[in-house]
Amino acid sequence: MNEFKYMSLALKLAKKGKYTTSPNPMVGAVIVKDGKILATGYHKKAGQPHAEINALSKLNFQAQNCEMYVTLEPCSHYGRTPPCADAIIRSGIRKVVIATLDPNPLVNGKGVEKLKNAGIEVVCGVLEEKAKKLNEKFFKYITTKIPFVALKIAQTLDGKIALKNGESKWITSEKSREYVHKLRMEYDAVLTGIGTILKDDPQLNVRLKKVYKQPLRIILDSKLKIPLSAKVLEDPSKVIILTTALADKEKLEELRSKGVEVIITNEKNGIVDLESALKILGEKKITSVMVEAGPTLLTSFLKESLFDKIYLFIAPKIFGADSKSVFSELGLEDISKSQKFSLESVKKIGEDLLLELYPKQLKKLEE
Amino acid sequence: MNEFKYMSLALKLAKKGKYTTSPNPMVGAVIVKDGKILATGYHKKAGQPHAEINALSKLNFQAQNCEMYVTLEPCSHYGRTPPCADAIIRSGIRKVVIATLDPNPLVNGKGVEKLKNAGIEVVCGVLEEKAKKLNEKFFKYITTKIPFVALKIAQTLDGKIALKNGESKWITSEKSREYVHKLRMEYDAVLTGIGTILKDDPQLNVRLKKVYKQPLRIILDSKLKIPLSAKVLEDPSKVIILTTALADKEKLEELRSKGVEVIITNEKNGIVDLESALKILGEKKITSVMVEAGPTLLTSFLKESLFDKIYLFIAPKIFGADSKSVFSELGLEDISKSQKFSLESVKKIGEDLLLELYPKQLKKLEE
Repeated sequence: MNEFKYMSLALKLAKKGKYTTSPNPMVGAVIVKDGKILATGYHKKAGQPHAEINALSKLNFQAQNCEMYVTLEPCSHYGRTPPCADAIIRSGIRKVVIATLDPNPLVNGKGVEKLKNAGIEVVCGVLEEKAKKLNEKFFKYITTKIPFVALKIAQTLDGKIALKNGESKWITSEKSREYVHKLRMEYDAVLTGIGTILKDDPQLNVRLKKVYKQPLRIILDSKLKIPLSAKVLEDPSKVIILTTALADKEKLEELRSKGVEVIITNEKNGIVDLESALKILGEKKITSVMVEAGPTLLTSFLKESLFDKIYLFIAPKIFGADSKSVFSELGLEDISKSQKFSLESVKKIGEDLLLELYPKQLKKLEE
Repeated sequence: MNEFKYMSLALKLAKKGKYTTSPNPMVGAVIVKDGKILATGYHKKAGQPHAEINALSKLNFQAQNCEMYVTLEPCSHYGRTPPCADAIIRSGIRKVVIATLDPNPLVNGKGVEKLKNAGIEVVCGVLEEKAKKLNEKFFKYITTKIPFVALKIAQTLDGKIALKNGESKWITSEKSREYVHKLRMEYDAVLTGIGTILKDDPQLNVRLKKVYKQPLRIILDSKLKIPLSAKVLEDPSKVIILTTALADKEKLEELRSKGVEVIITNEKNGIVDLESALKILGEKKITSVMVEAGPTLLTSFLKESLFDKIYLFIAPKIFGADSKSVFSELGLEDISKSQKFSLESVKKIGEDLLLELYPKQLKKLEE
């Protein structure tokens, strides 16, 4: 079936924008006439032309009797750019094949309606699952206003992240650590807890040859224990600290005068309430967050079911019993309450394994 | 390169014998003339004709100017069947391509020598690694007289095998459990500890539609605590119990009169010494053993580096901190001492993952 071939190509094009389109979705478009591909396009960056326009422009917006394959429903509203649906209609396109509707309430079916009203044949749902997966972060955010939350975990075969003496450096291989830097570019922000800052003093930035973007760094620090000399504060404009009313006012002012954004959030049991924190990040238009934290914070996200995905790196090593576990604070009473996942992909990265896991039942584990 | 094509076919044929050739290796053979495959054969069962003979017999042992591709060096000695090298020479074969030499001290190069002395062109080493892997159990046993030991482990993502209340049934899916039954057929014996017998009362047999063979069941039971009603004793002729001088003599006699083989082995710290136990099993011509045991015995095999391979089934679940770990008795002082593995293969089995791991450094972890 040729429509799968063209849509696959459109999806492949869409992916080219993976580090740059946020907060917009990735979109790809292919224009075909009589089985021949005449033009292709993809969305590069928010504020720049959409995929459909990029493809049409290569034909000087003359696409009489052509078909367009596009991975997301064309927009019907004026955003930073005019509606794509209008340009498609004017170009003379005969048929539009769409992978998935745009869940954005401003579009969501209205683009398709506009095209149909103009007499264009519209087919929806070709490679729909793939298209939704591609934009999983956008879909979550646009429908809930809460960022898509991924937990990044690196462990040994026996679920350990450190030996009992705390030794934990280089659990995974260099290749895996490089891969994590690439993942950081796919997310608007990296989030960690004050524990990790005090223990490891990480930079949490992207250190690769080709850096497409640096993610924001979000630190949960309920009592503002962060030292002003912390490496993560080297680029203060990229840092958001979420704290509570328990924090020292003077330290708060010091951080703010350094240029760091510090937000006071609700507290729960003396620490930043995660649910409110994510809501605040959503209000700040942060559409996706990758959590790179220690066992305490990871366990909290898991217990409160406040995550959408886990990147689990497994190093082919065994640390043994006295070592520190990833989920050291998670206790379950019986097997039926165990958190279950669906395993969507397995990759070998260097010597390690990367599992992409999605929660099977999003329920709070303990109340 | 055609030689890889023919050798791949020979390896595929060899695998057909995987449940039945032990203690012999699996071997496949392909006879080719002018780029055309004339005959194929594989070794089905110890005592029955070897692969080379099976292939030659299809040509009535007339193979003038043919090439033979065979996954293991043809034998040169009289065993239960006459030497294959002689039959090859008599058949008129012009060239023999061999994947790997036979490590059996009775052969090991002598087969090649015999062929060469008869003027046959011999090429060695085509797909050698694959051929060695295929017969990893045979290679280990024939060179060391110690069985190839595989540890089978089924755990959650966080390395747990049971909740704190001991609940552990059905960690992995039905598909994985079925796969374990298939693995049992690939091993001469399944080995477990008395702890597992008392806790789970397993049958440790193969329960599949098509059963090619039932493995021996070996139980380490230093004080002969096994109840006479244990399910594993239902077929006493298939059971070997390894015990120590600490065992009750009366119980020993009861078991023996039931038809169970009970062997008194060396003890170490009051329990069966694993190294001696494996040696005894080797003397009994048991070439391979799959250990299906609890954390204590698994940890012992790991600590003493008495294993060749791990089948690690990982269920996409998290049990959390208070749960029972696989390696609950293994403690490491620093990361450099962690047991490292090479990850040879990853398979999705139903919802679970199966990792095939080989130890990277076979050294004793603690002394």
